[in-house]
Amino acid sequence: MLTISNRGYQMPHSPIRKLVPYAEAAKKKGIKVYHLNIGQPDIETPPAIMDAVRHTDIKVLEYSHSAGNESYRRKLVQYYKKVGIDVTHEQILITTGGSEAIMFGFFTCLNPGDEVIIPEPFYANYNGFACAAGVKVVPIKSNIETRFALPPIHDFEKVITNKTKAIIICSPNNPTGYLYSRAEMEALKEICLTFNLYLFSDEAYREFCYDGEYVSAMHLHGLEEHVVLMDTISKRYSACGARLGALVTKNKTVYDTAMKFAQARLSPPGLAQIMGEAAVDLPDSYFDAPKAEYLKRRNLLVSRLNAMYGVLCPNPGGAFYAMAKLPIDDSDKFCQWLLEEFSYNNQTVMLAPATGFYGTEGLGKDEVRLAYVLNTDAISAAMDCLEKALEQYPGRTN
Amino acid sequence: MLTISNRGYQMPHSPIRKLVPYAEAAKKKGIKVYHLNIGQPDIETPPAIMDAVRHTDIKVLEYSHSAGNESYRRKLVQYYKKVGIDVTHEQILITTGGSEAIMFGFFTCLNPGDEVIIPEPFYANYNGFACAAGVKVVPIKSNIETRFALPPIHDFEKVITNKTKAIIICSPNNPTGYLYSRAEMEALKEICLTFNLYLFSDEAYREFCYDGEYVSAMHLHGLEEHVVLMDTISKRYSACGARLGALVTKNKTVYDTAMKFAQARLSPPGLAQIMGEAAVDLPDSYFDAPKAEYLKRRNLLVSRLNAMYGVLCPNPGGAFYAMAKLPIDDSDKFCQWLLEEFSYNNQTVMLAPATGFYGTEGLGKDEVRLAYVLNTDAISAAMDCLEKALEQYPGRTN
Repeated sequence: MLTISNRGYQMPHSPIRKLVPYAEAAKKKGIKVYHLNIGQPDIETPPAIMDAVRHTDIKVLEYSHSAGNESYRRKLVQYYKKVGIDVTHEQILITTGGSEAIMFGFFTCLNPGDEVIIPEPFYANYNGFACAAGVKVVPIKSNIETRFALPPIHDFEKVITNKTKAIIICSPNNPTGYLYSRAEMEALKEICLTFNLYLFSDEAYREFCYDGEYVSAMHLHGLEEHVVLMDTISKRYSACGARLGALVTKNKTVYDTAMKFAQARLSPPGLAQIMGEAAVDLPDSYFDAPKAEYLKRRNLLVSRLNAMYGVLCPNPGGAFYAMAKLPIDDSDKFCQWLLEEFSYNNQTVMLAPATGFYGTEGLGKDEVRLAYVLNTDAISAAMDCLEKALEQYPGRTN
Repeated sequence: MLTISNRGYQMPHSPIRKLVPYAEAAKKKGIKVYHLNIGQPDIETPPAIMDAVRHTDIKVLEYSHSAGNESYRRKLVQYYKKVGIDVTHEQILITTGGSEAIMFGFFTCLNPGDEVIIPEPFYANYNGFACAAGVKVVPIKSNIETRFALPPIHDFEKVITNKTKAIIICSPNNPTGYLYSRAEMEALKEICLTFNLYLFSDEAYREFCYDGEYVSAMHLHGLEEHVVLMDTISKRYSACGARLGALVTKNKTVYDTAMKFAQARLSPPGLAQIMGEAAVDLPDSYFDAPKAEYLKRRNLLVSRLNAMYGVLCPNPGGAFYAMAKLPIDDSDKFCQWLLEEFSYNNQTVMLAPATGFYGTEGLGKDEVRLAYVLNTDAISAAMDCLEKALEQYPGRTN
C-alpha cells in the first residue's frame, strides 16, 4: 500500500478552518455570521498600491532575483529606517508571505529534533512549519491574568536543553494582542545571549501599536547575530493575498544559507513586489486612518466583553486581536454551538477557540480569540450575539 | 557559537547562479553575453492575461482559499480536459509555482531518509527540495548517446530498496528536452505498480512538444493513486515571475495531506491566480506561435551544434533545452572560461555546465545545457561564439 509520510500524518489541520463547515451550514439556514475568527482585515488595500499593478507595463513577467528585486529591497531599506531598523538591502530576503520567512528560518537554523521555545498562546501555524521541518515546539505559558506578559526568565531556563536553538516571539502578538515592553525585549536578549539562541521575531503587526512603545528585536544592541526578523506586508497594507514577506537578518551565515533555500524555489511573487515597492512610497500618514479605526474597534470590543458577567478581556496593546476568558466549559464546543445551535435576531458570531493557539494540551478551554476586523456596527451586533449566547449556553460554568 | 542547521550546510547552491559573477564581470568589460544558461523565456507574457490583472477591481486583496480560488480551479478543470487529463477542482491544489508543488509532494509522501529515484541528468532544484525535506535522491543514468531515453527497468530495480517511495520524471525534460514515449510511460507505470511507488510527474513543458506524442502520467490507466502531477504556468504562458503552479492528484489521502501543508502557508499568490484564470480563456491557437518559434530555434541550435567538430547534440523532442556533448575537459571550467577569458567580436555565450544536473559525482563534465530562449539571430551569434571558443579553449580534448 502507498503510504503518507509521518510528518504528513502529524501535520496539524488548521484549528481555525475546522469550524468552517458549521459556519457554512449556518449561512445556508439564512443566519448572518459575524466573522471575528480570522485575521483577514476588511481595511481597503491602499488604491495606490493596487494601481501600481494596474499600471505595470511588464512585457515578460520574468523570475525576479531569488532574494527579490533589488529595487524593492532598496526601497524596504527606507521603510525599515523609518521604524528604527537599520539594515542594508543585502540583509533583506523577500519571501512568499511571512509564512515562507518562518519556514526558511526553521530550515536554516534548526535540525530535525531541535527545539524552539514559544510563549503560548501562539500563532497556530508555527506548529505546521515546525512539523514540516521536524522541529519540536516547546511552549511556555503566558497568562491572561497578567495580560499575556512575557513568562518569567525562570520558565525559559526550566525548558532549555542542548537541543534548544531558538525562541519565537510575535509582538504585537497574534493571538493575544500583547505588545512586549522594552524591559521584556531586553530580558529576551539576555536569555538569547546566555543560552546562545536565535530570536525569531515575527513583527507582522508592527504598525498597529496603541499603547506603549514598539520595540523591534532589531532594536536590541548586541543581539544582531541572533535576530531573524520575519515580516510581511499582509497586515501592514491589508494585502494578505499578495503573499509578500521578508526574512531580515544581520547574520550573514543565516542570510546566505536562507538564500540557498530561496534559490531552490527561484523567486518570490513578481506582481506582489510591485505592490510592495509602491507601498513604501505611501505617505507616512497612511497608517493614521487604519490605526484609528482598529483602535476604535478595540476599545468597543474590549469594553463590551468586560461588561459581560464572568468575562475577562485584557486590553491588547497592539495588532487586531483580543483574547477573552469566558464562563464556558469548552471553547471548541462553545464556538461550534454558536454556529450550530444558536442565533439571536437570526445572527451569530464565529470565534476562534483558544485551544488551537496553545501548545500544551488542555489549555485554552475557557478562552477564545476575537479578531476585530469588522467595523464597529458589526462588532456591536456580534457582541450582542455573544452576550445572549453566554446567557443561553448549556455549558456555562458560572 | 550560533550554528546553522545541517540541512542548511548541505543545501546545494544553485549550480546555474554560481557563474553569475563572471557574467557580470564580462558585462562590465563591455562584452555582450548571450544567456543560454537559464530557462527564462523571452516570449511575451500573453497581453490578455496581464490585462486581466490591470483591469482588476479588487478592493481588498484577501487570502484566497488555501487550495486556490475555486473559480480558478474550476477553470483549470477545463484546461486539463483539453490536454486529456480528467480531474475535478477538488483534485487540484494551487501552489506557489511548480516549486511548492514539488515541496508539498516530498513533505506529503516521503519521510526523512526515504529515497526518490530520478533519471539523471535532472532539474537541479530537485536536490534542494530533497535536502530541505531530508529525502535522499538516488540518480540513475540516462545517456546522451541514446538521446536520454528512459534507463532500462533493470536499472531502476537495481537501486530500489525498502526506503524507495517515489520516482520523479519530467517530460518533456529539463535539462535534456527528451519526451518520454508511451512505451516508456507504460514501463514507468509497471515499475510504480510493482514496487508500490509514487510517480511524481513534472509536466512544466507540456505545451512544447515538437516530435512524438505527449503522454501525461495522468493518462496512464490504473496508476491513478500513484500519480502526483506537478505543474506550473511559468513556461506555458511565459509567466515565471507569477509563481503559480499546481499539485494535481486523484489520491485523496495525498491531496488532503498536501492541503494541510497548504493551510499552514495560508494561500497561493492572489494576483497570479487572476492571470492563471484568464489564461485558460486564451484561444487554443495561442500556443501555435510560441511553439513554432521554439521549434525554429531548436532546429537552428541543434543543427549548428552538430555541425561543430566533436560536438554531439541529440534532437530534443520538447521543452526548450538541449544538451550537448563537447570536446572539453571540464564543463564548469569551460563555462567559466567563456565568461572570464574568451570573447569573439566582443561577444560571448553563457551556458549551464551539465555537472549541476547530474546526481552522480563526476558525470556531465563534457556536457552543457543550452536553453533556446533567445531569438534565432541571437542563437546564431551565440553559436558563432561557441564554435570559435571550442577552437581556442585550452582544455579541448580532441
